[in-house]
Amino acid sequence: MNFQTKLVEDAVDQLASLPGIGRRSALRLVLHMLKKDRSMVESFGQAFIQLINGINYCTVCYSISESDICDICNDSKRNSGVICVVEDIRVMMAIENTMQYKGVYHILGGLISPIDGIGPSDIRIEELIGRLADDNIKEIIFALSTTMEGDTTNYYLYKRLKDCNVKISSIARGIAIGDELEYADEITLGAAISKRMPYGE
Amino acid sequence: MNFQTKLVEDAVDQLASLPGIGRRSALRLVLHMLKKDRSMVESFGQAFIQLINGINYCTVCYSISESDICDICNDSKRNSGVICVVEDIRVMMAIENTMQYKGVYHILGGLISPIDGIGPSDIRIEELIGRLADDNIKEIIFALSTTMEGDTTNYYLYKRLKDCNVKISSIARGIAIGDELEYADEITLGAAISKRMPYGE
Repeated sequence: MNFQTKLVEDAVDQLASLPGIGRRSALRLVLHMLKKDRSMVESFGQAFIQLINGINYCTVCYSISESDICDICNDSKRNSGVICVVEDIRVMMAIENTMQYKGVYHILGGLISPIDGIGPSDIRIEELIGRLADDNIKEIIFALSTTMEGDTTNYYLYKRLKDCNVKISSIARGIAIGDELEYADEITLGAAISKRMPYGE
Repeated sequence: MNFQTKLVEDAVDQLASLPGIGRRSALRLVLHMLKKDRSMVESFGQAFIQLINGINYCTVCYSISESDICDICNDSKRNSGVICVVEDIRVMMAIENTMQYKGVYHILGGLISPIDGIGPSDIRIEELIGRLADDNIKEIIFALSTTMEGDTTNYYLYKRLKDCNVKISSIARGIAIGDELEYADEITLGAAISKRMPYGE
């Protein structure tokens, strides 16, 4: 496709390098931008330059941060004795949005997935174990996806952590709130019955 | 939603300002970028800053260009006596990609659409008529969408141009190549029969 000018082609190439955006959509977006104010497109570009130059990873939990220690790890009101283990930052953000959790996090940066060649050493498991040297840590919560990879990682972590002197828990599995039981899948429904909870808790 | 850092939030806001990208997808894209090299994200940002600072509109056809006159208007091998009138740059690019057209273009920058408050003075119709002062112009080709707005614009342009000493034509309407007749809509099929063409031309 001929984009008339190299500048447009470069911008299209950049947008099309993002997952889920093809060259045709990218062109539509670039032409949309050209209709905007110059300053708005400049801010668009600047936002990414500032992002990549200003972003850091927290040296404790590996979340994104603008400083060495992220706001959550730095917050004295959070319970640093409870660590919630998550796959990536998006899961952490989703949990934060529930406003139900007041502990801290550990971002694994992936899940064990032999089929993709990702082993325990490719994700931040040793870093998690390193954090347990602090006697203050009382509980580790596994908050990983209920997929093959999530379960494998849960199991590996459990084996590594079970002899440490911490409580190990996992987020509750069961019927999602608002789900109709007749449409629930058999495995979830079966697990929800066998792991039934005391009513009213 | 809490994005942990202002930098991420800014980048998400910028991406989410584009049509068809929601905040959740924007976050996914930003986190994808954070996994890339710093230099790649810098180039991403730079591409848009360079785009908006380097782009110009051709003073003849109003296409995008890096100079005052675009490459097509400047190309002595193109037939400047034939002007193809299009809605926007994307249509021009689509026609260029067919490699069947050797004339020049006129970008209207929209179509007449009373429902959206777009009248003849809001698009570049006077500029087109201004170009006809050049006696070299022999033919105007309407290449507008077959929508209500496209037809309205065609009709308005025809009324304005019919007394000028130029041939006025429209791109051919009919059954698309590769289409099966039984699935063609009635209006297209009806028009294709009444406007039938001599075989073999």
